[in-house]
Parts: sequence; C-alpha cells; structure tokens
Amino acid sequence: MNFGKEIKDAVETRVSRRVKTSIEGLDKMLNGGLLAGRNILLSGPCGSGKTTMAMQFVCNGAMQYNEKSLYVTLEEKKEKIINDMEKLGIGIRNEVNNGRLFIIGCPIASLNSYMHKVDANIDNIIKEIEEVVRQNGIKRVAIDSINLLTMLLQTDEEKRLALASLCNTLSSLGCTSLLLSETKEHSMDLSRYGMEEFVVDGVIVLYLVRQGQRFIPGIVVRKMRGINHDKEIRYYRITDKGVTVYPEETLFANI
Amino acid sequence: MNFGKEIKDAVETRVSRRVKTSIEGLDKMLNGGLLAGRNILLSGPCGSGKTTMAMQFVCNGAMQYNEKSLYVTLEEKKEKIINDMEKLGIGIRNEVNNGRLFIIGCPIASLNSYMHKVDANIDNIIKEIEEVVRQNGIKRVAIDSINLLTMLLQTDEEKRLALASLCNTLSSLGCTSLLLSETKEHSMDLSRYGMEEFVVDGVIVLYLVRQGQRFIPGIVVRKMRGINHDKEIRYYRITDKGVTVYPEETLFANI
Amino acid sequence: MNFGKEIKDAVETRVSRRVKTSIEGLDKMLNGGLLAGRNILLSGPCGSGKTTMAMQFVCNGAMQYNEKSLYVTLEEKKEKIINDMEKLGIGIRNEVNNGRLFIIGCPIASLNSYMHKVDANIDNIIKEIEEVVRQNGIKRVAIDSINLLTMLLQTDEEKRLALASLCNTLSSLGCTSLLLSETKEHSMDLSRYGMEEFVVDGVIVLYLVRQGQRFIPGIVVRKMRGINHDKEIRYYRITDKGVTVYPEETLFANI
Amino acid sequence: MNFGKEIKDAVETRVSRRVKTSIEGLDKMLNGGLLAGRNILLSGPCGSGKTTMAMQFVCNGAMQYNEKSLYVTLEEKKEKIINDMEKLGIGIRNEVNNGRLFIIGCPIASLNSYMHKVDANIDNIIKEIEEVVRQNGIKRVAIDSINLLTMLLQTDEEKRLALASLCNTLSSLGCTSLLLSETKEHSMDLSRYGMEEFVVDGVIVLYLVRQGQRFIPGIVVRKMRGINHDKEIRYYRITDKGVTVYPEETLFANI
Amino acid sequence: MNFGKEIKDAVETRVSRRVKTSIEGLDKMLNGGLLAGRNILLSGPCGSGKTTMAMQFVCNGAMQYNEKSLYVTLEEKKEKIINDMEKLGIGIRNEVNNGRLFIIGCPIASLNSYMHKVDANIDNIIKEIEEVVRQNGIKRVAIDSINLLTMLLQTDEEKRLALASLCNTLSSLGCTSLLLSETKEHSMDLSRYGMEEFVVDGVIVLYLVRQGQRFIPGIVVRKMRGINHDKEIRYYRITDKGVTVYPEETLFANI
Amino acid sequence: MNFGKEIKDAVETRVSRRVKTSIEGLDKMLNGGLLAGRNILLSGPCGSGKTTMAMQFVCNGAMQYNEKSLYVTLEEKKEKIINDMEKLGIGIRNEVNNGRLFIIGCPIASLNSYMHKVDANIDNIIKEIEEVVRQNGIKRVAIDSINLLTMLLQTDEEKRLALASLCNTLSSLGCTSLLLSETKEHSMDLSRYGMEEFVVDGVIVLYLVRQGQRFIPGIVVRKMRGINHDKEIRYYRITDKGVTVYPEETLFANI
Repeated sequence: MNFGKEIKDAVETRVSRRVKTSIEGLDKMLNGGLLAGRNILLSGPCGSGKTTMAMQFVCNGAMQYNEKSLYVTLEEKKEKIINDMEKLGIGIRNEVNNGRLFIIGCPIASLNSYMHKVDANIDNIIKEIEEVVRQNGIKRVAIDSINLLTMLLQTDEEKRLALASLCNTLSSLGCTSLLLSETKEHSMDLSRYGMEEFVVDGVIVLYLVRQGQRFIPGIVVRKMRGINHDKEIRYYRITDKGVTVYPEETLFANI
Repeated sequence: MNFGKEIKDAVETRVSRRVKTSIEGLDKMLNGGLLAGRNILLSGPCGSGKTTMAMQFVCNGAMQYNEKSLYVTLEEKKEKIINDMEKLGIGIRNEVNNGRLFIIGCPIASLNSYMHKVDANIDNIIKEIEEVVRQNGIKRVAIDSINLLTMLLQTDEEKRLALASLCNTLSSLGCTSLLLSETKEHSMDLSRYGMEEFVVDGVIVLYLVRQGQRFIPGIVVRKMRGINHDKEIRYYRITDKGVTVYPEETLFANI
Repeated sequence: MNFGKEIKDAVETRVSRRVKTSIEGLDKMLNGGLLAGRNILLSGPCGSGKTTMAMQFVCNGAMQYNEKSLYVTLEEKKEKIINDMEKLGIGIRNEVNNGRLFIIGCPIASLNSYMHKVDANIDNIIKEIEEVVRQNGIKRVAIDSINLLTMLLQTDEEKRLALASLCNTLSSLGCTSLLLSETKEHSMDLSRYGMEEFVVDGVIVLYLVRQGQRFIPGIVVRKMRGINHDKEIRYYRITDKGVTVYPEETLFANI
Repeated sequence: MNFGKEIKDAVETRVSRRVKTSIEGLDKMLNGGLLAGRNILLSGPCGSGKTTMAMQFVCNGAMQYNEKSLYVTLEEKKEKIINDMEKLGIGIRNEVNNGRLFIIGCPIASLNSYMHKVDANIDNIIKEIEEVVRQNGIKRVAIDSINLLTMLLQTDEEKRLALASLCNTLSSLGCTSLLLSETKEHSMDLSRYGMEEFVVDGVIVLYLVRQGQRFIPGIVVRKMRGINHDKEIRYYRITDKGVTVYPEETLFANI
Repeated sequence: MNFGKEIKDAVETRVSRRVKTSIEGLDKMLNGGLLAGRNILLSGPCGSGKTTMAMQFVCNGAMQYNEKSLYVTLEEKKEKIINDMEKLGIGIRNEVNNGRLFIIGCPIASLNSYMHKVDANIDNIIKEIEEVVRQNGIKRVAIDSINLLTMLLQTDEEKRLALASLCNTLSSLGCTSLLLSETKEHSMDLSRYGMEEFVVDGVIVLYLVRQGQRFIPGIVVRKMRGINHDKEIRYYRITDKGVTVYPEETLFANI
Repeated sequence: MNFGKEIKDAVETRVSRRVKTSIEGLDKMLNGGLLAGRNILLSGPCGSGKTTMAMQFVCNGAMQYNEKSLYVTLEEKKEKIINDMEKLGIGIRNEVNNGRLFIIGCPIASLNSYMHKVDANIDNIIKEIEEVVRQNGIKRVAIDSINLLTMLLQTDEEKRLALASLCNTLSSLGCTSLLLSETKEHSMDLSRYGMEEFVVDGVIVLYLVRQGQRFIPGIVVRKMRGINHDKEIRYYRITDKGVTVYPEETLFANI
C-alpha cells in the first residue's frame, strides 16, 4: 500500500479501538465492545430496560474506564436521574461531583409553553449537548430518547435530518453514543419512525415477546458496522443491579 | 459515599416508601405496592374494570390509610361518581363530607360550547387538578381518563406534552397517580395513542382475551421503575365489591 | 352511615330499578334488565337485527309496561317505521295514536340540501329529541343510529362530544336509552368510531361470525355498569316476531 | 286494531307484494322474491356477475312480468348495453323499442370535461333517473354502479347522503331497485365504502373465494328487511344465459 | 326477432370476432382469443412478464395477422424497446420500417421539467395515442403502463376518468387494447389503485407466489365479458422467446 | 433481416456485454453478470449488507476490470467511506489517488440548513453525479441510497420522476448502476416506496428472515431484463471480506 503509514495507523486505531459497555454479556455479543466514535441505536418497547442499559453504559464509562460521560434525558429532571442511577451502583453522585459524569435533564414537558418556537428549542438542546461534549471532552453519550428529542419536529424527514446532524457532530467529536428509541408494543420494528436505523452505525434491539402469560426479553445486535458481531437473539434479564445478557442461552427453542 | 447523609436518607425514603393499592392481589404483584410519588398508567379496553380499580385506589387511600385522595372524572358528574363508589363499600360519602376524599366531576361534554377555546379548557382542568392537590395536600390521584383529558388536543405531540406536564406537576407535589387509558377492543396495546406508556413511571395493563365465547380478564405489570415486580399476566375478576387479582393463578395454560 | 336516609333511598332506588327489555332471553343475560336512566350502546354489523331489537325495546315498553317510549330513526320516514313495527306485534299504531309511542322519522337524506348548515341540523335533531322527551315524560328512547346522527360532524372529537352531550341530557331526564351503532363487516369492534363505547354506561354487541357457509349470530353484554351481567357470548335468532336470545346455549363449542 | 281497514290493507299489500327476480334459484333464497318498493344492494368483486344479474333483473321484469324497467349504466354506452343484453335472451331490443325497457347509458368518463361542476353532474344524473322513472311509471331499476354514481363526490358523507336521497326517491315512487356496488378483491366486505349497506333495505353479496387455483362463486342474502330469507352462502354459476343460483348446494363443505 | 338483420349481423360480428394473442396457451384459456374492440387489463407484480407479454401481443399481431399494432411505453425510449422486442423474434425492426408496427416511446421522466403542466402532458400523450391509432388504422394497442400514464394525476378519481376516457376512445376506434398495471409485491390485488379493473372489459392477472425459496408464476383470466373463459389459475413460464402459458397444468396442487 | 449489419452488431454488443460484479456467487445467479448500461435496484433491510455489496461492486470494477467507478453516499463523508472500503481489500486508496475510483460523499444531514431549497439540492446532487460520470468516463456507479437521494422530495410521484430521470441519464451514458434501497424491517417488499422496482431494469433483493432466534440472509434476483437469471432465493453471508453468495444452497428447506 502506497499511502502514508501515519494515515493507515490512524485508520487502524480508529477502526479497532473498542469501547466496552461493561454490561454483562453484551460485550461478548459485540466481540469485544462498541467501536469508538460510532452512533449506536438502542431500541425496544416500554419496560424493556433501555434506560437501565443506557445508565449502565455511561456510569461504567465514568467509573471503570475514567471516561468523561454524558447522560441526556428528555423525560426526567437531573436529580431524579441521579437517584435512579444510584440504585445501579454506589458512588454515582461522586462521579457527578468530580466532573466525570455529566447529566442534562431537560424534561420535554417544560418546553410546553414554547410550543411555537419548536425549532429553536430542538436546536438549543442539540447545541447544548454539543457544547457540553466539546468543552468537557466527553467520550460517551447516551440520549434518552431520540423520539422525545425529535418529537416536536413535524415530518419524518425533519426528524431524520436533525438526527443525522447530531450523529455527525458526536461522531466527529470522537464520542461513542447510545441513542434510545421507543418501539411500539408487540412490533418487531427496529425503531419508532422506521428510519432511525439508517442514520446510525449500529443497531441493538430489545424485544419483549409474549409466550403464554410471560413476556420473554430478547436482545439482538442487528447491525454493527466494522464488527463481526453475534447475529442471534439472546436472552437477558433486568435485575436490581442492571441488565445482564446471556449470550450463550437459547431463546425460542421450540419455534 | 461522600455526599451528605440527609440527602441519601431522603433518597432512600423517597425510593422505598410504598403506596398500597389495597386491591386484593395487586400489591403482591407489585412486590408491596406502588412507589410513592410516581405516575402509573392503568390501561385496558372497554369493560375491563379500569374505573372500578381507580375508585378502589382512591377510596382505600382515604379510608384505610387516611390519605387525602382525589378522583377526577371527565365522563360523569360528581354525584353519579359518589353513587357508584358507594356500591364498592360503605362510608364513601362520609369521606367526601369529611374532606378526605375529593372528587372533580367534569363531564367533557359540558365543554361542548367552548370548542374554540380548547387550550384554555384543558389548561383550566389541569390547573384545577393541580390547585386541589396543592391546597389540600392530596397524596393519591386517579384521572379517568387521560384520553378524555387530552381528547381535544389535535396532535399526539400536544397530547404527550400536556400529559408529561401534568405528570411532572403531580410527581413534584408528591402525588401517587393512576392515569386511566382506554385501549382499543381486541388490541394488546399498552395505551390509546401509543405514547402514554413512555411518559409515566409505571404501566399496568388489563386485557380481555376472547376464548371461545368468553372474555378472560388478564392483568400485567408491564413496567414499574424501581420495583422488582411480577412479570406475568395474571387472572382477575370484577365483582360487586371491586376488582380482585389472583397473582398465583395461571392464564392461557394451554397456549 | 351518617348521611340522610332519604338520599340513600334515592340512591338505592335509582341504582336498583330495572327496565325490562322483554326481548326473550336478554333480560336474563342482564340479570333482570337494564338499569333505569342509563345509556346503552347496541352495536352490530349489517343484518344483525339492531333495528328489530330497538323496535322491540320501545314497543314492549309502551305496550307491556305502559311507559312512554320514543323511537328516533334517521334512515326511514315515520310511516315506514310504523309499518315495520306492526309486523312485530299487533296494536302498535294504536299506541302511536294513544300517545304512548312516539316516533321521530327524520331521514338524514332530507338534510342533503342543507349541507352547509350541518351543526344547526344536528343541534336541531338533538333538541327535537330532548323536547319530545321532556314534554311527554318519555322513559325509553331508541336512536337508530348514532352513526347517522353524528355522520355530518367532521372529527371523532365532535362526534364524541355531541354523543356525550345527548347521553347526559337523556340520562338527566331519567331516560333509559338504546343507542344503535353500525360496526364494520367481519370486525369484532364495539362500535363504528371506536369511541362510542366510552361515552355510554353499557355496551351490548351483536356479532355475525362466518362458519363455513353460515353466519352465526352471537350477542354479548360487554359492559354494564352496576349490573352483574352474563359475560359470555350467546346465540340468538331473528324471527318474524323479533329477536330471541338463548342465554343457555353454547356458541363456538369447538373453538 | 282501531285504524281503518283500507290503511291496513294498503300496508299488507305493500309489505307482502313480491317482485320476482326470475334469476334461477335466487327467488327461492328470498322466500319468493324481493319486496316491492325496496332498495337492494348487490355487491361483489370484479368478475362476480353483478352486471349480468342486474341485466337479468330488468329484462325479466320487462319480458316476463310486463313491468316497465330501467337499466342505468355509468360505464357503457346505451348501444353496447343492448348488445350485451341480447346475449342473455332474445327480444331485448324489441322491449326497448316497445317502451317497456329503458336504458340510460351515461359513461362517467364523458363527464371528464366538466370536472369542476361535479355536484351539478351528479344531481343531473339522479334527476334524469327520477324523471324517467316518474314519467314512465318504471317499477324496476338497476343502477350499475353506485360507486361510479358517487365517485365524484369527495367524502363518504356526501356519498352516503346522495345515495340515501336517491333511495328515498326511488322507494317513494314505488320502484324496486338493484344498486350495484363493487367490492375490493379478496375482501369479504359488503360494499366499497363500508356504508352503502346501511342505506338500503336489503343486501345481496357475491363472493369469489380462492380455493387452490380456483375462484369459487358464493352468494348470500345478508340482510332483507321484512323477508325470512335464506341465511347461508350458496353456490352460483355464470353461464352464457346469465347467473344461476343453487340454493340447495353446499359451499366450503370442509371448512 | 323483429329488428333488422343488418344490425343483428353487425352485433354478431362485433361480438364474436376474436383477436388471437398467439401467446402459447393463453388463447386456449380465452376460448379462442380476446374479443375485438375490447380493453383488457394485464396486471402483475414486478418481474412477472407483463412487458414481455405485451410485446408478444403487438408483435404477433403485426407479423402473424398483418394487423397494424402500436406499443406505447412510458418507461423506455423507442430504440431500447425495439432492441428488447428483437430478442423475442426476428424481423421486428422490419415491421417498424414497413409501418405495421408503431412504437411510442415517451419516458415519463422526460416530462420532469414540465411538472407544473401535468394535465397538458397527460392529455398530450393520450391525444398522441389516439391520433396514431386513428390515422394509421391501428387495431392492437399495448400501453406499458397505465400506472405511469396516470401517475401524475392527483386523485384516484382523476386517474379513473382519464383511463375510462382512453378506453372509450380506443374501443370506439375498434382497437383491442392491453393495458398494463403494476401490482404491489406479494399482494393478490387486481390492480395498483383498486379501480382499473372496473374500467375495462377484461382482466388478466399474473401472480408470483413464493413457495419456499421459489416464486411460482400463475396466470388467471379474472373477468372477460362475453367470453366463456377458463376460470382457474394456470402456470406459465418466461423464456427467452417470451411467455408460455400451460393451461392444462395444476398449480398449488396441495393447497 | 433487412437492417444494416452495423446496427445489429451494436445491438448485439449492447445486449450481450456483461459487467461482472465479482461478488462471489452472484455472477453465477446472474448467468454471467449484469448487463452493461442497465440500472439495478439492490434493496434490503437494515444490516443486510447492501453497502458492503455496493462497495464490492465499484472496488472490483476499478481494481479487477480497470473500469472507472463511482461510489455516491448520502450518509457518510468521503474519508469515512474510504476507510470502510479498505477493510474489504487492500489498495483502495491507491485507486482513488490514481483516478480509477471516484467517491462522492455528501451526507444528507449537511443539507439541513438549505431545507427550503430542496429541489435545487436534489438537482445539484444529481447534476454532480452526472458531471462526474460524463467527464471521467465512469462505467460503474453505486448510489447509497436512493431513499436518501429522494427523501427531501414530497410525493412518491416526484421521487419516481427524479429517479427515472437519473436512471435514464446514467443509462444513456453507458453506466451500469447499482441503486440501493432500504426496505422496512420484516417486510418482503421490493423497495421502500413500492415504486422503485418499476423504474429500473433489474431488481436484486436481500431478505433477513427470522427463524427462531436467528436472522437468515437470503438473496434473489427478482427481475433482470434480458438475462435468464436464477429465480430462487439463495443463502449468502457477510464476512470480513465482503458478501459471499451461495447459489447452490437451499434456504427454507422445510417450508
């Protein structure tokens, strides 16, 4: 190959560096972790544990890998988020105080009174995210959820453009991002609007499949550019300490 | 942990305090009751007993736990509601007279003549709810139904914002709230508009599944942040004295 | 209980008084009849016998219980209705002449030329119904159909509001009302617009289920506030003398 | 009964007089024929023989019962219709010449240039039908099809009103009418717009059910006010001489 | 019969003259061929061979029956069409040069720049077709496709009117026409817009049914006024030399 | 045949020249490769390997056949694309530097700020593609994706016209083009908008079919004008070195 070694090295590094989620079992499905600098969609129905997984992703980054991490919620206030995170493990509030864990709590409802200035609002939130990332050298971001973030935009096209714009910025800043998307009950859709999956570099999907009177949780890595990932649907559990994935177990054995 | 003990205690208390529904069998599914200060969606089709359960929730709060409770109906007038409640148990009217049980009966139909002032109407109802809660120290609220409450709003986004705003207010006032949502016949949806479940902290769903010539009632706790709840669909019955849940029984045994 | 006996008695009376349909078998499913002063939705597909049952309800009221009854049709003219009723039993025209049976025949088609004054039209019909009820002390009302009544209103919300308004008025005047709703062929919907069932106090549904080359009729009391009603789907037949329900027979035995 | 005998007689006559279709087998399903003065919907998918049956209905009326009959087509020109009718039996053109059989051939396509005067057009066609009926004492009418007749009207409500208006007029003029409606392929719908069946007095439905590589034709009388009709789906055949119904044969024997 | 013999003869001739497609096996299904002067819809999904069959129809007409034939394509340019036709048999270009085979190649995309003059465009194409037919005595026409032809028209009604107008003109000029319509993948629809089948005199449908990992082609004559046609779905194959139909073979033997 | 030999030769050449994809197994399904100068739709759901196949197509063209090739992406930036391509094989960047491989990386998101100049944007991109093709003698083009390219256009008609216009241009410049289209999850659709398949000369579809907890990839050549292609669904795999098709293997053996 006749192009400069430094370029190749940069490529290699960029391509191969892995960001561990440290969510039990998930990194194994990912053959080592997420690729650094990529945008990953995490989608699933109500009650499937998306928020828990997103919290684990940023908390583990801050506490285990000393990476500056950001959690953005459009549902809850900052204090409520910290309370919920503390249940997953000790020391979270400490990370916030030490400046390793950042939280933007911007309940979408508080925008209620500005309904006629929608674009400005969305732009402002996105700009705030970008500024926090840029100024603090954030390396992990979770956004809960992109549905809420783009909810006030009218058309699917506007949503897609806003989302693509955010993804590009986060990626160019070197952030590994988890973007949460709420899917409809009983669907096996990849996302709410049927387009989010095409904007991102990877897609992890959570299912809740009714079998008799139970709802069985299943997780699959549906797309992950550049990673030779597990392609099967795996069983997982939501416990007090967060989500645990069982990459060896078999779901739907009889189907 | 290096943050003040008083904060931690407040967190612990807030997190762990349970609000018992005292609906037979349901508190067991909830591993002890609802979490105080949370918003719970109670959804189900026509005739599944949502109204009965909501009445039980507020009446039990007022009579058994001496908690100030509020029942908001957008279907019926206040007097009709009291009549219906009396059938569930004796002494209800007494609670109303004593100021432990509050009832807002605001039939949506009476708003007919103000159709062009929709926002004002919705705002007024929500403000009235908030004022009653704030001035009387209400701790339990049931709203029958959020479909009716948001019916006059045009778009799903407006409905979601109004709902999120109400939830935030009730939660910040320390209220535990049951928000009723009517699902479509024969669907297994979680809500009417497919978004209510993402605004709340918990979701309880009622099903009526046709088997031959019967409609079998089933109840499931689909999401309940912070509670290690039962995840199976359970059988329940609507009797003269209210709803009874059978958390040990098996539904759909042969499916 | 510390509230006045007279209030309790009024409540008891209001709650417990039954209005017999005298449609063979149906009162048994209802555990004695409809509750006085309530609005009941009667829905079913084309050819399921809704009109016949509604005619039986008002004719039986007038002839057997000496209750002033009103039949409102938006499809046919008054004379045609009387002709059809006569086939169900003798003496109907006599009841009309004696002022026990009232008929409003207002074919919706005759409003054709007023299409731009829709609201006025609907309001006028509703007002006419209310006036007839009020001035004559009507106790039973059948409206065939609420689809036609609300057809000219644009949105589901307008339809719902109009319907709720009519229900409230009839209920406050002490009328027991049967509101007919046309469901779509082969659906198992409760109503045409998916909202009528939430406005009323009770829902009776007629099905026509194809089995091989037959259409099997089935009837179910889907919701009936304050009545411990039969919850199964029962077989019925449409004969020359009206509808007969078989509350003991089993439908779908092999399903 | 205390009303005048002449009224009763008129009622009896009006109710009981039957109009024979003379379509082999169909009158048996109808327990003697259609009721005079009623509007009947004849619906079915493409290729199910609606046009053939409608032609038989008017031709048989003119030739066998000496009733003045009218065929209205919005698809074809008058001459083409006469050609097609001649294949069903001899002497049709004679009936046209003798003034027993009337044909209005008004291909909807020729209205193309008047697209901006839609209401006028529809009104004109309907008025022309009414005038022909009134001036000539027409007793049988077939309209092929009401979809085409109402196609240019924008909303379902406008279509329903126009249809109801036409039905009322034809009925008040004493006409027995067959209104053709095209259903969608593979549906088991009763009509195209899901509302036609509620405007008419009776509904006859044609099905084409695919079984393996065949399409089996089935006919059912789905609703027929005042007639104790056959309620099963029967087999029929389309031959060179028109449609023949087999009211004794069994369809779907194994389903 | 008392009408003039010459009229009857004209009718007989017009009715009975058959236009052979000379597509192997298809004329047998049609009991001898298409009826002269009729409009036939040929519908099917992507890759089902509609274009090939249409080309065979016009080429066979020109070469075997010496009928002036016209192929209209809105997808491809004239030269490309001729190239494709040559693969079906030799001598096609000769027919074009000799003036027996006419081709209008008007790729819809070239209208791109005139988007605001849509009506004019559609009118122009239709007029051009009519002029070519009229001036050259064309007897066979294939239009590929009517979806493209009517695509720029906004509503289904406009599409239907335009189509009906074209059909009427072609029919009155004595043309036998094959109108191609693209159905949606995996549907068993008769046409794209669900209305084309009601405008034409006959409907031939192509299916591609997935069985395991194969797509089985099936053809059925769904409607053909005036012809006692085969009513079963038959197997066909697309070969280098065009489509061949196997009217004796059985499809779906085990279904 | 009486037309000039040079024309016939040109036709022959044009028809028969094959463009090898050199994607293992695919050329065998295509009976030798794609036809030169044709537009091929490559559609499939998220994660089915469309982008990988498109990259293989252009890289193989540049490196193995020395054909000038162009890759257009509307998702990613040029540098990111080159990085991704390098993983498929060595020397890609060299091809770019040597001017055999062209890349247009125009992330659609960067058009965000020009949202009100949509037509101009789309026109500009299409013109840029055409200019690059024309000026450099490009023979292979891949566009990833046509959904993104046409996303900003409002109606399906506008999308179809824009697409048809692009196809015509590329075809007339002698380009063999692969147009990528994202289908919806779990559908077996041929394309996103249900019309792309009718604009192109060929359609290759990728499926991901869930079987138990796996997603089985399948590929089928659904339409390929002028090629006697394999008609079955074949198994393929996405490996580190690109997509490999197994044209001999059987999918869905038991279905």
